[in-house]
Amino acid sequence: MKWSCIFKPITRANSSGCLNFTEKWLAVYRIIKRLTMTKKLVIIDTDCGIDDAQAIMMALAAPNLEVLALTCVFGNAAVENVCQNVLRVLSVCERQEIPVFQGCAGPLIGVNNPFSDHFGGDGLGDVIEDKDPQWKEKLHPEHAVNAMIRLASDYEKQVSLVALGPLTNLALAVRQDPRFPQKLRDLFIMGGNIEGKGNVTLCAEFNFAMDPESAYIVLEEFLCPTYLATWEYSGRNALTWEFFEELINQDAPAARFMKMVTSKCWAYSKEVMKNKRDVYFGPGFVSYDSYAMAACIDGSIVLESIECPVRVELQGSMTRGMLVLDRTSSLKKSHTVSVMSKCDVAKFGQLLMESLRQP
Amino acid sequence: MKWSCIFKPITRANSSGCLNFTEKWLAVYRIIKRLTMTKKLVIIDTDCGIDDAQAIMMALAAPNLEVLALTCVFGNAAVENVCQNVLRVLSVCERQEIPVFQGCAGPLIGVNNPFSDHFGGDGLGDVIEDKDPQWKEKLHPEHAVNAMIRLASDYEKQVSLVALGPLTNLALAVRQDPRFPQKLRDLFIMGGNIEGKGNVTLCAEFNFAMDPESAYIVLEEFLCPTYLATWEYSGRNALTWEFFEELINQDAPAARFMKMVTSKCWAYSKEVMKNKRDVYFGPGFVSYDSYAMAACIDGSIVLESIECPVRVELQGSMTRGMLVLDRTSSLKKSHTVSVMSKCDVAKFGQLLMESLRQP
Amino acid sequence: MKWSCIFKPITRANSSGCLNFTEKWLAVYRIIKRLTMTKKLVIIDTDCGIDDAQAIMMALAAPNLEVLALTCVFGNAAVENVCQNVLRVLSVCERQEIPVFQGCAGPLIGVNNPFSDHFGGDGLGDVIEDKDPQWKEKLHPEHAVNAMIRLASDYEKQVSLVALGPLTNLALAVRQDPRFPQKLRDLFIMGGNIEGKGNVTLCAEFNFAMDPESAYIVLEEFLCPTYLATWEYSGRNALTWEFFEELINQDAPAARFMKMVTSKCWAYSKEVMKNKRDVYFGPGFVSYDSYAMAACIDGSIVLESIECPVRVELQGSMTRGMLVLDRTSSLKKSHTVSVMSKCDVAKFGQLLMESLRQP
Amino acid sequence: MKWSCIFKPITRANSSGCLNFTEKWLAVYRIIKRLTMTKKLVIIDTDCGIDDAQAIMMALAAPNLEVLALTCVFGNAAVENVCQNVLRVLSVCERQEIPVFQGCAGPLIGVNNPFSDHFGGDGLGDVIEDKDPQWKEKLHPEHAVNAMIRLASDYEKQVSLVALGPLTNLALAVRQDPRFPQKLRDLFIMGGNIEGKGNVTLCAEFNFAMDPESAYIVLEEFLCPTYLATWEYSGRNALTWEFFEELINQDAPAARFMKMVTSKCWAYSKEVMKNKRDVYFGPGFVSYDSYAMAACIDGSIVLESIECPVRVELQGSMTRGMLVLDRTSSLKKSHTVSVMSKCDVAKFGQLLMESLRQP
Repeated sequence: MKWSCIFKPITRANSSGCLNFTEKWLAVYRIIKRLTMTKKLVIIDTDCGIDDAQAIMMALAAPNLEVLALTCVFGNAAVENVCQNVLRVLSVCERQEIPVFQGCAGPLIGVNNPFSDHFGGDGLGDVIEDKDPQWKEKLHPEHAVNAMIRLASDYEKQVSLVALGPLTNLALAVRQDPRFPQKLRDLFIMGGNIEGKGNVTLCAEFNFAMDPESAYIVLEEFLCPTYLATWEYSGRNALTWEFFEELINQDAPAARFMKMVTSKCWAYSKEVMKNKRDVYFGPGFVSYDSYAMAACIDGSIVLESIECPVRVELQGSMTRGMLVLDRTSSLKKSHTVSVMSKCDVAKFGQLLMESLRQP
Repeated sequence: MKWSCIFKPITRANSSGCLNFTEKWLAVYRIIKRLTMTKKLVIIDTDCGIDDAQAIMMALAAPNLEVLALTCVFGNAAVENVCQNVLRVLSVCERQEIPVFQGCAGPLIGVNNPFSDHFGGDGLGDVIEDKDPQWKEKLHPEHAVNAMIRLASDYEKQVSLVALGPLTNLALAVRQDPRFPQKLRDLFIMGGNIEGKGNVTLCAEFNFAMDPESAYIVLEEFLCPTYLATWEYSGRNALTWEFFEELINQDAPAARFMKMVTSKCWAYSKEVMKNKRDVYFGPGFVSYDSYAMAACIDGSIVLESIECPVRVELQGSMTRGMLVLDRTSSLKKSHTVSVMSKCDVAKFGQLLMESLRQP
Repeated sequence: MKWSCIFKPITRANSSGCLNFTEKWLAVYRIIKRLTMTKKLVIIDTDCGIDDAQAIMMALAAPNLEVLALTCVFGNAAVENVCQNVLRVLSVCERQEIPVFQGCAGPLIGVNNPFSDHFGGDGLGDVIEDKDPQWKEKLHPEHAVNAMIRLASDYEKQVSLVALGPLTNLALAVRQDPRFPQKLRDLFIMGGNIEGKGNVTLCAEFNFAMDPESAYIVLEEFLCPTYLATWEYSGRNALTWEFFEELINQDAPAARFMKMVTSKCWAYSKEVMKNKRDVYFGPGFVSYDSYAMAACIDGSIVLESIECPVRVELQGSMTRGMLVLDRTSSLKKSHTVSVMSKCDVAKFGQLLMESLRQP
Repeated sequence: MKWSCIFKPITRANSSGCLNFTEKWLAVYRIIKRLTMTKKLVIIDTDCGIDDAQAIMMALAAPNLEVLALTCVFGNAAVENVCQNVLRVLSVCERQEIPVFQGCAGPLIGVNNPFSDHFGGDGLGDVIEDKDPQWKEKLHPEHAVNAMIRLASDYEKQVSLVALGPLTNLALAVRQDPRFPQKLRDLFIMGGNIEGKGNVTLCAEFNFAMDPESAYIVLEEFLCPTYLATWEYSGRNALTWEFFEELINQDAPAARFMKMVTSKCWAYSKEVMKNKRDVYFGPGFVSYDSYAMAACIDGSIVLESIECPVRVELQGSMTRGMLVLDRTSSLKKSHTVSVMSKCDVAKFGQLLMESLRQP
């Protein structure tokens, strides 16, 4: 790493032209931290529902990761809720120094999709009562898309982008800066599917279904190394409900928080899921976004992948948003992605377990 | 069975108003045959390529089936070739008394799909040299669609329809006579797919891809009991190439014919298929249409099925023609079909083996 | 005309193999009629609403036309109603000798479109009380599609087909007999639009919108001379409401019938149409189907036409069913059609006026 | 206007945190200019081809307009060429103080449309030889989308946005700042069509066809007063080729520039256009973008408009990108736009003529 790159955060001005005291202090803090160990730099783009919260905690707990920024997008809840959820997670883990950026409020084409109630109306199980009235001031004023572009330019080829929600921010970023993808080190996505089975629609997975055009753009134009944790991958590598009980009953703030937000949420009810997901994959507890994050933290967790070109269907009446794998090269694409197919469930469970022992 | 129904074939006039000698004799023959044993009545709608030929032979060899008619449709070859292929198969098996009807020459909407060369340009491996110059005269003059409607009316609720090609004839039949489906006993289809994997296009199986609209119509409007042998079902229940060798090397006219037509055909080449189909299902020999026919002959061959509503995607840019299973009832359809999922491969192999010991 | 052709109707058997007395008599009657004058032979395919009734009367009144058959299709009403309406019109005009055939009950792809109430629930203004309980027996037993194919073969290159409803019967005919279009003399269609303005949907005209796929098929595969009377053509060549009053107040059974069926129909209300159609074309009375029929009766009524290739849009979310004119040859089609653009309104009014002075 | 607003440009820092000498000088210049007269503030978003150049010159010549910024987008040429073309036009008119911003290089969804050669490969007739090697440094470093958002916020409700190219920059702006449209005073667009006639595709106008999704977004989400100058509007209000000759033969730098860039361009050839555009509208010279700009400069030039909701078709196979007018309110939209239908051609010609007498 070059020195100029390290000191950039200090010398670069914010939008009003100067650095305030807190910002300067944080910049110095980050530089020192960066100098003392070599970590993987990460931006997490999230529509922070419960499983995003779990995945973010996993990142915060990982000793080999440095989270540069959290960028928010609509999805599991309205983007304003997502921002508050992210701030809450950082607060639980006592990591408020990480900057949070507000991003897009709706899908690229703008057709109104109602938000999922998968994780409650606020994305975190509708159980939090002490909302922070000052949340807006705790956000960084820059737009998520501009922040992504700036950070990828500052730390060229060093940033892993982990995308846990609809891919709208990423699509805007490449449209605004066509060189954005090649400035990334790699990209981990939770989204899409392998076998034409969907969760929110008949054939499409939630994150892709919420903004098919952005998913299409990202998988066509992000030519950096790309790793997909799909719905079937997470569903087929579920953990047991017994594991879940043990996980949230650990004695630590993060575990207690997770126990609280999952307490009234149907997506964490063994009985409800029996009629919803188990028809495809059998019983089990699934923390979707964590599978993508785990692959970023420790690549050896992914035991098998299908390496092939992929494309998102945009036009189908039932298949819009479905991911299509091109295993016989009929699309004539040169770029391939890694579609995870087999997970080291034991290792993955270990990461999950540790992530809730925070701060 | 009522007597009036049995004697109808004699009293019903052909298109010129009277029965000629041969027709009378055949009608009497069929009546006697029908009186002496209770058989399942079958119409086979076929785009007679090599695997259709195999499936037809299986039907002809089945002691519990009576083939009322063979109706031809474009698909593996032009419909004129298909007619000649069907007549040839009947000739090999010495069953020329079964009437053959020419049907549709192209898909419902009429967009030109080039024919597949899967089984050679003529559908039977391009090895037959002694074409019959009189084939047209051996066809029944009635159009396949009218013949289907007539037979289903004559033998109401008694006819099993086995569809081995694009479903164009069936779609026209229901459009012309909306009560046609309810006059059938049941319907067996080779076509469609379960996991979004295609063979001719990225996401669609050949028979459905050749005429997606007809497949859509049949699966929406044929409310009779319906059984689907899909691409994945056949692919996942493949036989070994050793079995194939034994199969075609039997000492009988049917086996010798099958050995001849598969001799130069890449679809029966172990090496070629390694790069085409085996990427999905592993190695093996697959006689697609025979799986649908086997289910009609002996239901116990199908060990497991998924019973659910289905629909064909018509609009996708990559998914047009793909079969969608609605396992969570989001389409609000009342009609379900049986999508075969597990096959008694031993029994199936037995049926195949016997079918080539003809005549 | 060859003698063999003239006598064919006598020697050809009906579906039960023989001619009954009435049929023989009618056949002889038609032969004599044909021998005494040279007339244009016409098949009228109709979804008999009020304007179809008017167009049929125009055909019956035309001294240079011989109506060979009336084939019925769903559209302005259910096909069973359409059949009864056609029989009623023939009865009013005392022309019951013309055979009527029942055709398709719904569009090609079969998605349920509710019927229009443009001309009332029964298609003829919901005012007829003395329904004929024997109407089914007065229909010819042959299906409309088979009748079309048979007549076009019997009178090859002599029949003008005038299509006044959704084009489903025509699409089935070409699919069953690919040579059907080239056996026709010419084809007159009421349907489609020129300027992207629709009546039932934002961009599509009623007859095309009711079955876009059939309209597509007909305009792609009917390579006979084809003449289109579009919605804009009829709308821009409207007659005055004063003319309408004079028309239906003539002293003749046909006029009295037309006065009765339009009496309570909003589509013939000057006030209602002000808010519906007049926004596009200004005020006036429009008898849609009559424009196509008039062009068949007397080509000189069409003062100007655009001669170009056309295609029907099948996929648009707002434009499905819209007719597209290819005036700059970008579709690379070799076949062109005549899209009528300017009408001799005086002559047209004269034909209308005479048509209601029957029988 | 508030003082804080006027001085903002001075106090606001550029991206490197400080103002250089030239920038400060320009800011002061603009403030003085603003204080001395009340002008309409304008941002011009352009894909600067020849007719954009003409429209920009018209804006620069208008005494009642102040051009705040020129934002560039791909379209008539690659966005890099567009930037150079805009700088060139400003140079010819000696107005280099107006800032120019580079925007999007391709359409929202990113499917590659080849650029039009309508105005030559470089958008300005391929005749300019002395390209400026320093053009990049003359661009403002901010992205066009960010500049638009910033200016609309600085001068809330005061800015008229005139969009002369594909609407990609506008779509990104509303996605990044959902309040952007309501901060605008009004919006003038050259694009779309009224009668389903297209120029680049069968049914779509160039600017909309180049990025249908962005056109859709803008017409759904920009709820500010919106005025459309469509293809048919410009085509039906063409000027004569004699006028064109007089126009470019004026004795002024701007006229000489326009004469040069149109000299070898087929779109300004009377003979070529006879086969292309005249089939629809008859002969004449059409400066498309100038019609939108003229409406912004002097509303009285638009003699008649259709006020109704509109929507862009996204899915058609031939109609993708077509503008649909909803004159009968079937889309249930509350927002309407003004679709210009009749132009005061004399006044318009006058504006054109004056615009080339610069600087």
